Amino acid sequence: MELYKQKEAPISARVEDLLSRMTLDEKVGQINQRLYGWKSYQKVDDDYELTDYFKDEVARFGGIGCLYGVFRADPWSRVNHETGIPHADSLKVARMLQAYVREHTRLGIPLLLSEEVPHGHQALDSVLYPTNIGMGSTWNPELQMQVSAAVAAELHYKGVQLGLVSALDVLREPRWGRSEECFSEDPYLASIFTTAVVAGLQRKIDSTKTVAVLKHFCAQGEPMGGHNTAAAVIGERELREIFLLPMVAGIGAGAKATMAAYNEIDGMPCHANKWLLTDVLRDELGFDGFVMADGVALDRLRNDDVDGKQAAAFGLEAGVDLSLWDDAYTHAGESVTSGLLDEAVLDKAVTRILTLKFELGLFDEELEVVEFDKTGAEAVSLQAAREAIVLLQNNEQLPLSKDIKHIAVIGPNANHLYNQLGDYTSPQRDDYGVTMFQGIAAAVDGQVSYQPGCGVKSYIDGGIAAAAELAAKADQVVLVLGGSSTRNFNMQFDSNGAVIGSSRGADMNCGENMDVADLCLPQPQLDLLDAVVAVSKQPVVSVIIQGRPHALSEVSEVSGSVVCAWYPGPFGGQAVAEVLFGDVNPSGKLPASLPRSSAQLPVYYNYKDNGALVDYSDMSGSPLFVFGHGLSYAQFVYKDMRFVDGRVEVTVENVSAIAGFETVQLYVKANSRIVTRRVKELKDFRKLWFEAGEERVVRFEVDSDAYFGYWNERMQFEVADGRLQVLAGGSSATALAMKLEISDGKVMRID
Amino acid sequence: MELYKQKEAPISARVEDLLSRMTLDEKVGQINQRLYGWKSYQKVDDDYELTDYFKDEVARFGGIGCLYGVFRADPWSRVNHETGIPHADSLKVARMLQAYVREHTRLGIPLLLSEEVPHGHQALDSVLYPTNIGMGSTWNPELQMQVSAAVAAELHYKGVQLGLVSALDVLREPRWGRSEECFSEDPYLASIFTTAVVAGLQRKIDSTKTVAVLKHFCAQGEPMGGHNTAAAVIGERELREIFLLPMVAGIGAGAKATMAAYNEIDGMPCHANKWLLTDVLRDELGFDGFVMADGVALDRLRNDDVDGKQAAAFGLEAGVDLSLWDDAYTHAGESVTSGLLDEAVLDKAVTRILTLKFELGLFDEELEVVEFDKTGAEAVSLQAAREAIVLLQNNEQLPLSKDIKHIAVIGPNANHLYNQLGDYTSPQRDDYGVTMFQGIAAAVDGQVSYQPGCGVKSYIDGGIAAAAELAAKADQVVLVLGGSSTRNFNMQFDSNGAVIGSSRGADMNCGENMDVADLCLPQPQLDLLDAVVAVSKQPVVSVIIQGRPHALSEVSEVSGSVVCAWYPGPFGGQAVAEVLFGDVNPSGKLPASLPRSSAQLPVYYNYKDNGALVDYSDMSGSPLFVFGHGLSYAQFVYKDMRFVDGRVEVTVENVSAIAGFETVQLYVKANSRIVTRRVKELKDFRKLWFEAGEERVVRFEVDSDAYFGYWNERMQFEVADGRLQVLAGGSSATALAMKLEISDGKVMRID
Repeated sequence: MELYKQKEAPISARVEDLLSRMTLDEKVGQINQRLYGWKSYQKVDDDYELTDYFKDEVARFGGIGCLYGVFRADPWSRVNHETGIPHADSLKVARMLQAYVREHTRLGIPLLLSEEVPHGHQALDSVLYPTNIGMGSTWNPELQMQVSAAVAAELHYKGVQLGLVSALDVLREPRWGRSEECFSEDPYLASIFTTAVVAGLQRKIDSTKTVAVLKHFCAQGEPMGGHNTAAAVIGERELREIFLLPMVAGIGAGAKATMAAYNEIDGMPCHANKWLLTDVLRDELGFDGFVMADGVALDRLRNDDVDGKQAAAFGLEAGVDLSLWDDAYTHAGESVTSGLLDEAVLDKAVTRILTLKFELGLFDEELEVVEFDKTGAEAVSLQAAREAIVLLQNNEQLPLSKDIKHIAVIGPNANHLYNQLGDYTSPQRDDYGVTMFQGIAAAVDGQVSYQPGCGVKSYIDGGIAAAAELAAKADQVVLVLGGSSTRNFNMQFDSNGAVIGSSRGADMNCGENMDVADLCLPQPQLDLLDAVVAVSKQPVVSVIIQGRPHALSEVSEVSGSVVCAWYPGPFGGQAVAEVLFGDVNPSGKLPASLPRSSAQLPVYYNYKDNGALVDYSDMSGSPLFVFGHGLSYAQFVYKDMRFVDGRVEVTVENVSAIAGFETVQLYVKANSRIVTRRVKELKDFRKLWFEAGEERVVRFEVDSDAYFGYWNERMQFEVADGRLQVLAGGSSATALAMKLEISDGKVMRID
Repeated sequence: MELYKQKEAPISARVEDLLSRMTLDEKVGQINQRLYGWKSYQKVDDDYELTDYFKDEVARFGGIGCLYGVFRADPWSRVNHETGIPHADSLKVARMLQAYVREHTRLGIPLLLSEEVPHGHQALDSVLYPTNIGMGSTWNPELQMQVSAAVAAELHYKGVQLGLVSALDVLREPRWGRSEECFSEDPYLASIFTTAVVAGLQRKIDSTKTVAVLKHFCAQGEPMGGHNTAAAVIGERELREIFLLPMVAGIGAGAKATMAAYNEIDGMPCHANKWLLTDVLRDELGFDGFVMADGVALDRLRNDDVDGKQAAAFGLEAGVDLSLWDDAYTHAGESVTSGLLDEAVLDKAVTRILTLKFELGLFDEELEVVEFDKTGAEAVSLQAAREAIVLLQNNEQLPLSKDIKHIAVIGPNANHLYNQLGDYTSPQRDDYGVTMFQGIAAAVDGQVSYQPGCGVKSYIDGGIAAAAELAAKADQVVLVLGGSSTRNFNMQFDSNGAVIGSSRGADMNCGENMDVADLCLPQPQLDLLDAVVAVSKQPVVSVIIQGRPHALSEVSEVSGSVVCAWYPGPFGGQAVAEVLFGDVNPSGKLPASLPRSSAQLPVYYNYKDNGALVDYSDMSGSPLFVFGHGLSYAQFVYKDMRFVDGRVEVTVENVSAIAGFETVQLYVKANSRIVTRRVKELKDFRKLWFEAGEERVVRFEVDSDAYFGYWNERMQFEVADGRLQVLAGGSSATALAMKLEISDGKVMRID
C-alpha cells in the first residue's frame, strides 16, 4: 500500500509521499474551492444525486481541495426547504460527496467541506444564536465557548469540517454593515471572544473534527467611509495595537485556519500581502494552519495588467493556500509553467491542505454518525440572548409589572423573526422562534396587542396611525425599533416565477454590503416614535433590535427606558420579555460605543490624545452611551482601590436588594514615551454574580506585558520603565483610579 | 576681528567659529523661540520701549534664536490699533530689537523675526488675501506666487525674516477647522501651490531676505474625527502618496524652513519623529533648512514619565531645531549635562539657525529701508478673489442684469467684513474692505437693501421675518450664507474692562480649534434660506462664504444659482459683484469635493477602490459637487483625445459667445500591481483663456514617473511596465479617456 494510505505512518511522511505522486493539475485541485456547494447535489424525489457541475470539477483537477456551502441555504443561494438538504439528511449527502471524490479520482484524496457559521450554521433547521455583537455584549466568553461548541457539534453531525466564522473583525466603523459580525470595538474584549470561538469550535477537535476558519485577516473593521471591503488606511502600529490582537489570541487558542480579508491595508490587498500573511502571521505570530481566500477576492487582483495566472502567483506567494469561488487559482498550473510561480510555493499550500485532511482523519475514516443535542443548543442560544441584552437607560421604570392590563407591542422589529436573526441566516420554518411580541404575550396574563407601525426603513399605509391608536389605548407601550439584516426570503414565491434580481430584503439596512451613511434610525421609525410617545399613558419602553450601533439620541430623549438586544437570535423574544418583567436581571455591557451621530465618527473610546484635543464647536464628540455601559436592576458601588501582592483590588458592593451580574472592568491609561498611548485601554474584566447586598473584593493580576508593554518607536514590543493609571468600574467612564509604576520589571503603587 | 564677524569669510567657517565660542546656555538661546513677540515692546506716547520680558530672556541665554509675532495683532494677542505697531513704525521696532540683542549680549548674535502670514501678514494695516482654499480654487499658481511675493515685500518692509504659512496641509477632513488653510484635497494641486508659495515668498530672497516656514509637517490634514491636532491614523504609503508631496514640491522650490505638525502619525508625534524629520525629510528628500516646532508642541511631549529635558532631547534628536513658546527647549542644556542628549545634536540645530542668520546677512547689515507697494498688493488680492470664485450651479440665471430695480442682499455673511477674511486675521479699520452688500451696491444703479436675517450660527430677534419681508419686496435676492472664522474682535471694548475669556467669536464655526461634526449650514441659516426662498419673486442667488467645504444640499435644491467664494479677502464683495453681474466670468474650480453630509466622509475623489465597493444603502456616497467642478458663463466642449509625440492632446472648444477661462484637467487611473491605485489622480492641468468660439488643442507632456510611478510593495518608488487610463475634462467627473501603456520606459497608446 502506498505510504500515504498507511494510517500508522507519520502525517508529514504521508503528505510528502502523496505530494510526490501528484501532477501539477492535481496540486491545483487541492488549492481549489471554486464551487458553490449547493449546486453539487440535486434532490430527486426523497433522495439526492450529485450534479455534473460537481463531477466535472472533480474530473478537471483530479480532485477538489474544499467544497464550500453544500448545506448553505439562503436567498442568495436560492436554496430553501423545498430544494435544500434537511438536517437529518446532511451526513448522507456529505458521505456521498466524499465517496464520489474518493472513488473517481486517481489518488482518492477526500474533500474538506466548509460552511458558514457566523451565528449558527447557515443551513436548514440549524440552531441560530445571537450575532457576535450581541455575544460581545455578554462579556461572557464561557457562554461563547458553549455556543461555538454547540455549532461544532452540529457541524460534526453533518459531516462538515470547516466552520467559517467572523472572529477577527474589530468594530471601528459602525456604518459598516458587517458590524453585527464583530464582537467589539475593543481589541482586548474582541480577542477574549476569539479565544472562546476557537476553543469552542475546536475544543473537541479530536472527536468533532471541526476547525474554525477565522474571518477576516486583517483590519476589515476599519473600512474607509464604512464601505464594505474598502481600504483600511491605517499604519502598522494601529494594525498591531488593534487589529492583530484577535489573531494573536486565536493562534494562542490553536486556530488552524483563517480567511484573508477583502480590504487592502495602506495599499496592500490582504490577499497579496506577503508581509501580512507570511512574515507576520506565520513567522512572527507562529500560525501553522492554512489561509483561505475570501469569495472572488483573488479574482479582484486581476486587471488589464494582471491576468489570472499572475493573480494566482500573487496570492500563493503571499500565503493564500485555498481559493474561494475564484477563477484565478485554476490558473496556478500556468503560473508555474510560465515561470511566474515557483512550484515549491504551490507545494507549500497543497501541503497545508493535505496535512489538515490527514489530521482530521479524512483519509482513514468514514464520516461518523453522531448525535446532536438540538434542545441543549437552543438552551444555550436563549441564555446567550439573555446575557446579550444591554439596559441602556431606565428611569425607574423597569422591570415592568406582569399585572399591566394591556400592553401594546409596537414597531417594525416587534413581530418579525428574521429581523432578530442577522445576516447569513437560513430560511426559518414558520412556527420557529419567539418574537418580541410573542415573548411578551407569553410572559403576562393581560392583553398584549401588536402593531408594526412601519417597516424598518419604510412606511406602511396607515401604519403609524394604527400604532398610535393602539398606543393610546394601552397601559404600557413597548416600542421595538432598530435595524434589519433580513434578506429577501420571499424571493422563491415571486408570482411570475421570474428570477428576482436581488437577495436584499426590502427593509434591510444592515448586513454584508448594506452599509449606511446615517446612523440615526430611519425616518419612518422616528415618526412612529414621535406618534406613539405623544399618546402613550406611560413613558415608552424602547427595545432596540439592531446589528450595528445606531445613534439613539431621539429614542433616548423621549423613552422612559431603552433596552438594546442587538440581534438576539430566535429566542430573543423570550429573553427580552424575561428582562422587561424582571425574571432575568439584565447584565449586558456595551461592546461598542453608541454614537450620537455619524457626524462624530469615530467614537471608539480608546482613541489617541495628545492632551490638546478640543471638542467640536457644534456638538459633543462623545458617544451617547459609552463603551462598557450597561445597567442592572441591582446597583453597584465601586470603592477602595488597592494594590496588594502584585494585584489590583477593588471592592464592589451590590447596594440593592436585587441579585445580579456585574461586569467589573479594568482599564489603564499609560504615559506616552515618544509613542503616544490611548486615553484608556481595557485590560481585564470579571463578570460576577452578586447577591443582594453582597460586597466582594475583585482582584486583577497585573500583567506587566499587557499593562506596560507597547510597540515602541522602532516598532518593537517593549515593556519600558514608566507609570500608568489603572481605572476600575462598571463602564469605561469610570474615574476610580490609582497610579502604578514599573521599574526593572517590578510594579508598585505610587499614589 | 573674530572670524565669524568677517563678512567675506565662508558662512560655514563663520558658523563653526561662532559655535566654538558659544557656551551651552548661548546655544540653548539660539534654539529658543519662547516669547510672544508682542510682549517685547510697549508703546510709550508715540514711541516704543522694549520690555523686561524681552530683556530678561536675552540675558537668560545670552541671546534669542527667534522672536515670534512682534507684529501679531488679533484678539488672542489682545493687540489692536491702540496698543500695536502701525505699519509705518514696523521697521523701527524691528531695528530696536536687533540693536538690543546685538549690543547686550556677549556674542551679538542677531535675532530672527517670525510672523504669521497665512493669507497676508497677521498685523495691523497689512494686506490680506483669500485664504488658501480660495487660492487653490483659482488653479492659478502664478497668482499665488504674486500673492506670496507681495507678502514677502511687506515682511521685508517691516524687517521680518520668517513668514509662517500653511502650505503643506492636504484637506482630507473637512470637519477640521483649519480646512481654510489647505489648498486642496489633492496632493498634486496642493503641491503646485506649495511651489508657488515658496517661489513667491523667497523669490527675491537675496533682496527681500524672507524665508517661508512651511506649515505643517506632516499629515495634519487628516486628523481623527476632524479634531484639530488629533492623530493621523495612516500608514506610510498614504503618507507618501498624499501628505509628503507638498513638502517634496516645497523642497524642490528651495524651501528653507518648515514647522513640525501637532499631530502624531500612527503613534509617532511629529515633534519626536526622527524617521520623519531626519531620515525622510533630510536624508531622503534633501531638505537642508531648519525645522521649527509648533506652539507648545514640545511641551506636549511631557508627562509623568517625560520631563522637560527629556522632551527637549526627544525633539532635538528627532530634528526639531527651534522651539515655539515651549518651556521644554529651555531645558536643553540640562538634557546635555544629564547625558540625555549628545551636545553634537544640539550643535546641529544651532548650526542651522546660525547658518540662516548669516545667509540672510543679519550679522553684516542693518535692516534696510524699502518701499512696499500696498496698492499693487491690494490689486493682487482683488484678482485672487475674482479667480477663487467657483460657480457651483447656474440655472440660466447668472449673470444678473445690472438693471434690476431692487436687489436684496441678505444673510449673515452679506455685510460682515471679518466673516470673509478667515482665521489668523488682524483687527481691520472700520472703513476698509468691501463686503458683499457693499460690492453689489456699488455695482448697480438700482436699489440695494440689506438684512442679516440671522447670524452664522445664531438667531437674531426678528431677523428672519425682516429678511423675508425684504425678500418679498425685492426683485432679486442674493443670499449670502456660509461659515465664519471671525474671532472676538470686540473683546477690547468689553464694558467693564474685565479680561474676556475666549478669543472665539460668538458666530465662529471655522478656524483653528473650531472643528465641527455636522457640515450642514447651521439651522438658523437653513431657516433663513427657507423663509427667503418661500417669498422670493425670482429664484434666489446663493453666495457661500466659507472656510471649509459645507454640505450644501438644501441650498442647492432651492437656489437658482450657487456661488462659492470661500473666504475671499477684503475685496471679496467687489469680486463677487463682478461675477454676479458678468464683469468677470467665473473661473474657479473646486479644489475639494463638496459633500452631501458629514455622514458620508471621507468624500475625497482620489480614494482606493478594489473594484467591489458598494454604495451606502441610505444615500449616495458621492459628493454633491465633485473635485475640479466649476462652471463658467462660457461653455466648453472636450473632444478628440490623442496621443502625439509623447504628448496627450485634447481639443477644447468654447462653444459659447462669451470669452473665459477654462481649467483643463488631466487625470490618470493606473492599474494596480499588488499595490492598489486610486480611482483617479490629478496629474496635470492648464488654466487657459478662450475667446468666444475659440478652439484650442491642449497638450500635456506625459511624465512617466508621475503617471506610471508608484510606491511598490517594498515601499520603493517604481515605474513598472503597465497600462493606465488618461482622462481629460473640466472636472474630475470627466469620462473622456484613452489608454496608455509603458514598456521599457516607452509610452504608447493602446486603444
